Amino acid sequence: MNGDVLGPGPHTRVRRLPAKATYEAVAVFDIIDEARWCHVAGVVNGLAMSLPTLHAREGRTIYLHASQSNAVMRAIVAQGEACVTFTLYDGLRLARSGFESSIAYRSAVVVGAVRVIDDDAEKARILERFVDVILPGRAREVRPASDSEIRLTMVVAVEIDEASAKVSAGPTEDLESDLELPIWSGTVPARLVFDTPIPSADGAMATGAIEVPESVRRLLDGQ
Amino acid sequence: MNGDVLGPGPHTRVRRLPAKATYEAVAVFDIIDEARWCHVAGVVNGLAMSLPTLHAREGRTIYLHASQSNAVMRAIVAQGEACVTFTLYDGLRLARSGFESSIAYRSAVVVGAVRVIDDDAEKARILERFVDVILPGRAREVRPASDSEIRLTMVVAVEIDEASAKVSAGPTEDLESDLELPIWSGTVPARLVFDTPIPSADGAMATGAIEVPESVRRLLDGQ
Repeated sequence: MNGDVLGPGPHTRVRRLPAKATYEAVAVFDIIDEARWCHVAGVVNGLAMSLPTLHAREGRTIYLHASQSNAVMRAIVAQGEACVTFTLYDGLRLARSGFESSIAYRSAVVVGAVRVIDDDAEKARILERFVDVILPGRAREVRPASDSEIRLTMVVAVEIDEASAKVSAGPTEDLESDLELPIWSGTVPARLVFDTPIPSADGAMATGAIEVPESVRRLLDGQ
Repeated sequence: MNGDVLGPGPHTRVRRLPAKATYEAVAVFDIIDEARWCHVAGVVNGLAMSLPTLHAREGRTIYLHASQSNAVMRAIVAQGEACVTFTLYDGLRLARSGFESSIAYRSAVVVGAVRVIDDDAEKARILERFVDVILPGRAREVRPASDSEIRLTMVVAVEIDEASAKVSAGPTEDLESDLELPIWSGTVPARLVFDTPIPSADGAMATGAIEVPESVRRLLDGQ
């Protein structure tokens, strides 16, 4: 597959409502980059489980990190392949019928080969990226990771082999026979907002002299 | 296990950061009920995959619904057991180090036996509950489900055998040796907000005479 289209592949062909599906890399990447967390699935003790976790994308590589003891992460390393799911909640789509009503969402599913990042310098670089994933611009504001912090963390790369995205948006799609019913229909957009920061009160923060940093100010100003 | 404690069981013991874990039913149920969607995991074509979907809880039963052709849903029915994960994003916890920085979240993992709901009257009742899951109070406002809509939908029940919850909240937990660094730390709360509804413009809605219903007004007034 070329760089512009990531599917469909054997794991990611969308069968239900294919009109909502896309396999274009740019659409998949937009969802991954906007999602603040993802779910990675693995088989643990004979049962498929999914775990919420953070992610950082570089090109067709999704980085995940966890404690070295994380069971789902160890399972995907043992399996050598993983599925990662990204879901954005955009609000409500309220049709005249319950059947056609649902949430507005964008989701992406990627499947790819799993590789453990062993090199400490590479791990340090990726872990710094994770700080900026939590909040853009934060990495340069915090104390750099220590060697033992880097060793305690497992970092894995999932190289995207195939992916799909599914988008449910826009006006409701009612049955023709429902259109003249005296029932309100429409959409209600939803978004995540951040509220006033709550500063720590311990250590040097107790003086009240340390100002809200640029990363936090930019987050609040940008919404 | 009694009704007040749902774990730990073999699938749900929290090993990493056990201080953040709880197995109390009330804590698990609160997260499930506040979550607007969940992820269900299943093995499809030899690979563990997770699928975002809606859920409705009644006691220790989690109902899920999907198209009859849904591959993950068919997989959990075949397996007879499923893991469902619920994740709430509450904001940012910004420590002085990247290692101690993360998101504020509440998550719950439940594992239980899977049962297909075949009875049409029971399916109709549960599907009505799903309309109220999308938006409380909406079920009584929409056109009731038709027999064919009920037949097109697969409804499964997951009876909770074991569950755990994990909560990351409150002030940052910095290393003692980081406390005097001249670095801002604190938390930034996040929440989902709903914006002005966008009414449909087709059918009877084109007249502009159908008022925003109580369900939507209550959603907007309550935030």
